[in-house]
Amino acid sequence: MGGDQAPAIVFEGLQRVIGDNTVPFAVFEVYGIESVMAPFIQKYNFPANRVSFISCTETITSTTEPRMAVRGFRDASMRRAIEAVAEGRAQGVVSAGNTGAYMALSKLILKTLEGIYRPAIISTLPTMGKPVVMLDLGANVDITPEVMVQFCLMGQAFAKAVLHNPNPSVALLNVGSEELKGTTNVKEAHQIIQKTDLVKNYRGYVEGDDIFKEKVDVIVTDGFTGNVALKTIEGSVKFFAHTLKTELSRSWISKIGALLAKPAFDAFKNRVDPRYYNGAPFMGLKGISVKSHGGMDGLGFATAIKVAINLANNKINEKLQEEITVLQQRLDVLPYEENI
Amino acid sequence: MGGDQAPAIVFEGLQRVIGDNTVPFAVFEVYGIESVMAPFIQKYNFPANRVSFISCTETITSTTEPRMAVRGFRDASMRRAIEAVAEGRAQGVVSAGNTGAYMALSKLILKTLEGIYRPAIISTLPTMGKPVVMLDLGANVDITPEVMVQFCLMGQAFAKAVLHNPNPSVALLNVGSEELKGTTNVKEAHQIIQKTDLVKNYRGYVEGDDIFKEKVDVIVTDGFTGNVALKTIEGSVKFFAHTLKTELSRSWISKIGALLAKPAFDAFKNRVDPRYYNGAPFMGLKGISVKSHGGMDGLGFATAIKVAINLANNKINEKLQEEITVLQQRLDVLPYEENI
Repeated sequence: MGGDQAPAIVFEGLQRVIGDNTVPFAVFEVYGIESVMAPFIQKYNFPANRVSFISCTETITSTTEPRMAVRGFRDASMRRAIEAVAEGRAQGVVSAGNTGAYMALSKLILKTLEGIYRPAIISTLPTMGKPVVMLDLGANVDITPEVMVQFCLMGQAFAKAVLHNPNPSVALLNVGSEELKGTTNVKEAHQIIQKTDLVKNYRGYVEGDDIFKEKVDVIVTDGFTGNVALKTIEGSVKFFAHTLKTELSRSWISKIGALLAKPAFDAFKNRVDPRYYNGAPFMGLKGISVKSHGGMDGLGFATAIKVAINLANNKINEKLQEEITVLQQRLDVLPYEENI
Repeated sequence: MGGDQAPAIVFEGLQRVIGDNTVPFAVFEVYGIESVMAPFIQKYNFPANRVSFISCTETITSTTEPRMAVRGFRDASMRRAIEAVAEGRAQGVVSAGNTGAYMALSKLILKTLEGIYRPAIISTLPTMGKPVVMLDLGANVDITPEVMVQFCLMGQAFAKAVLHNPNPSVALLNVGSEELKGTTNVKEAHQIIQKTDLVKNYRGYVEGDDIFKEKVDVIVTDGFTGNVALKTIEGSVKFFAHTLKTELSRSWISKIGALLAKPAFDAFKNRVDPRYYNGAPFMGLKGISVKSHGGMDGLGFATAIKVAINLANNKINEKLQEEITVLQQRLDVLPYEENI
């Protein structure tokens, strides 16, 4: 639960997933305030063997500070849903609520996998070819080069498990492809990778416009840059669509043209629609916790639910833990400072 | 001269500007290798009272390291063109060549305006409404909060002079609008602005998707994030256009639809086409130096030339120097460290 449009989008998203034959066995627990959920429970009337409702007395809102969410809010729907994963009653949790609080609570309750420095927000993005995996999309704004190196491994583990890519390539996001360019962090991460053999299939630097060019399978950056890039893409797509719509509606000939081309526009929309790329997991935790974008509708929320199901089916964390454990010894060579 | 497609795009761009009645009095000097320019000089046959050609013996290429460009290359076309501005023979210089070398040489030869900590790459971007000014787009990857505060003033001076906006609003690019979010740099810049009255009409934080929403007139960020955001926008637009084109060409009905809607598509293209937003000045130097994007064609290069003419006509540097001098005393309160 939670998010700008909750609980409407949660119920709508759930209905889409319940009716989706590709995930016929998934069962759901919905955590929320009883009085708020009641009209929706009645309206949607989900089969009792698929969906159950757990009543909570508190809500974490978009203005709740993460450190307050961590300290209090014992009966908040967000906290209790995460606890269901920690206690093994659920295989994953999805929320569209307060990102900072959700991240902080997920870290606190699920705990970080052994050997992981920092969990990261990860997602796939559409490109001219196959989707690209990108992280960190906002979990860590100030990081070290060593964390960035580990993000490369986490991204590759994700690409292996979720996109079934046996040997994903990885690159660091930078402002140029030359050796000398970039922040101190990026240059140092690059040097560590070049001096060690920690990261297989490393391709060096890519730039912002390379995200869409299918140049590499995984792109790694800090949470500040990643978040700005992600939101810039969202903004660009909306701006693009808005401007196109405005121009197409200026004359009746254009309107007829647009009508004839509707199947093409629909196919186009499906390929770039952020709702089909929604659902960003917190990667590196001992449990599946997926963030649905706050501005999404039911279709977007359904995608996020399916991401969680897919991750659980693919045993992503077991696989990531394996990868990291194998690499742990080599990772220990890195002079990582915890107190950043 | 210089850039991926030089000198073809330079000559093509020049032809467009020569034929443009909005800038009837502009005259041009073109710096380049004589043998390379010769066929183009013959082909375009520009009026001698508008365009002259200065022969150089060296070229700075995309692989020339900025520090090498600064030390040597005495007769490089890029260096000599910048010198023409420093010596007062030209009011501005435009290049599509190696950004790092061009920036380093512009700084070395033109010098920084009194009181300016760091020059920045600045540009306007299209939005749902009027264009937004954004800086830094790549000049400084590692900066301090104090530099960021000054970027706010530089951006506002640019908006005043070039967009004729008497009271431009400004915001810092961040990953959230809440007080607690952001890197240490961004949060400290925010605090300095809030504690002092250095920046008028300050609006706090904006996010990546706000760039297109006409929320503020000027958006300030560091050169790393700004460059990634700019290139991400470029990549998004290309990806969007490519995908739309692909889908529209899948059936003949869609093709007819697209044909009927052609005027709308053209108008749309004009509004989002990066060629119409090309030309990013190095702001904060004692002379006008404009960077044309390396991947632009002649139309894009023409836009960059017109940006330089516009800046010269608007006496941007005199105005910026005035603003900065007035603010100098107050700026001195900032504990700026030169050795970052």
